[in-house]
Amino acid sequence: MPKFNFYFPIQVRYGDLDPQWHVNNAHILTFIEQGRFAYLQALGLWNGKSFLDLPMIVADVHVSYLAPIFFGQDLRVGVRISRIGTKSLTFEYELEVTSTGQVSTRAETVMVYYSYHTHASVPVPDEWRKIINEYEGFA
Amino acid sequence: MPKFNFYFPIQVRYGDLDPQWHVNNAHILTFIEQGRFAYLQALGLWNGKSFLDLPMIVADVHVSYLAPIFFGQDLRVGVRISRIGTKSLTFEYELEVTSTGQVSTRAETVMVYYSYHTHASVPVPDEWRKIINEYEGFA
Amino acid sequence: MPKFNFYFPIQVRYGDLDPQWHVNNAHILTFIEQGRFAYLQALGLWNGKSFLDLPMIVADVHVSYLAPIFFGQDLRVGVRISRIGTKSLTFEYELEVTSTGQVSTRAETVMVYYSYHTHASVPVPDEWRKIINEYEGFA
Amino acid sequence: MPKFNFYFPIQVRYGDLDPQWHVNNAHILTFIEQGRFAYLQALGLWNGKSFLDLPMIVADVHVSYLAPIFFGQDLRVGVRISRIGTKSLTFEYELEVTSTGQVSTRAETVMVYYSYHTHASVPVPDEWRKIINEYEGFA
Repeated sequence: MPKFNFYFPIQVRYGDLDPQWHVNNAHILTFIEQGRFAYLQALGLWNGKSFLDLPMIVADVHVSYLAPIFFGQDLRVGVRISRIGTKSLTFEYELEVTSTGQVSTRAETVMVYYSYHTHASVPVPDEWRKIINEYEGFA
Repeated sequence: MPKFNFYFPIQVRYGDLDPQWHVNNAHILTFIEQGRFAYLQALGLWNGKSFLDLPMIVADVHVSYLAPIFFGQDLRVGVRISRIGTKSLTFEYELEVTSTGQVSTRAETVMVYYSYHTHASVPVPDEWRKIINEYEGFA
Repeated sequence: MPKFNFYFPIQVRYGDLDPQWHVNNAHILTFIEQGRFAYLQALGLWNGKSFLDLPMIVADVHVSYLAPIFFGQDLRVGVRISRIGTKSLTFEYELEVTSTGQVSTRAETVMVYYSYHTHASVPVPDEWRKIINEYEGFA
Repeated sequence: MPKFNFYFPIQVRYGDLDPQWHVNNAHILTFIEQGRFAYLQALGLWNGKSFLDLPMIVADVHVSYLAPIFFGQDLRVGVRISRIGTKSLTFEYELEVTSTGQVSTRAETVMVYYSYHTHASVPVPDEWRKIINEYEGFA
């Protein structure tokens, strides 16, 4: 049984590599960011265009690097929301080699629900709760 | 008739965007670099692993930005070698929106054939000439 | 006599390096972009804050890579405007090792004077011409 | 009393910004990476040149984003080693606006002491322990 309802392919670029010949640790945050936005679009929570309407800001990131990621690896990122707080959403991620299922990275980010129009945090709207609860199968 | 024998898909990332909400001009060089290495691998000229055996160094880049590239666009890069010099190779590229064929960027790079083992330029080997001539249909 | 009236220091980062152990060719565009914005701020043409009021878009880039740039090198970028067109500005740049004056990169970019408010090119305003002519010592 | 014995200036680049007009969360890992390598060089633990002799690999990262970082802010990163394990080193970091002392980011990384020659973790050598203990004032 897959651990995530949502997976998104990530293309490893030469430009992601560092002098140690593997993907740089900072670029791995770019990979999970890409997965997060694809997840929001898949659930109809963001249109992929208006960046002022992207209602979240990163508050906290925790990443465990389990294995280096190399150029040419077919990679995908699993994404889920694991917790809906009053004004925040917790995301979990796994980067894995698609063909083997080898997990390269596990990560968790806490996103504050935030308005770039008013520059203030706001409560997670009920519509978001409903859509996420349904998608993730929360009771 | 397609203008290139070789095309490679490019995934536009949120991380490629800048405050102007389109892909940053520097990241477009990363896109064409990605296409260049995919081309070399497709022709069997590089194994995609040993970066000391990647026998070229960028000498000159010319990029014409025709249209901005946006998040969510399905993009591909066309790559070809247009000229084989004594110690250099000239590459041409086009970034285009796959679904519409709209060309976003045209670019040309001059690559010096170079050994990272000896840190010196070296002549383009005959085997490379043969493979490229055949692939590009040069007389 | 220095070739540029304006120089700006660039901090080479580990994150700018690629598997070949020198600064990646795409990051060098980021260096000259940094110099360009510092130049505009120095001349009072941009406040450094409102990115919708940054009135230019990159149309064309030409870069000559003369020598690799390494981690730990003290680097600076020389910037000047070499030509003011009706609706465009041509910038010239040199990246050089500050302590030795060794030139690593020469570049030229054509910037279209552009409004991010109306998404259209506009003529270079007279006030800009006056300020630039004075700073660069044009007749 | 400063919280860190070691601080290193970070130049915020336009290229670090994302569509939300602040420094992208992934680039902040690049900032602390830059601080970490500067710290190692300052203590004489790395020569800044041979990347195969850089004896650590990132195992775990935890970042708390307290305030957004904007273009033009004068920034510095405080770095210290807070714990020396058998085969690992824990680093702590703070990014702060130099002029105001406002802390933008707190971070911790666990680095496995690692040989890129043998591709295996190795015990932290006694010489490293001695130098770090002295510099950080550990008993």
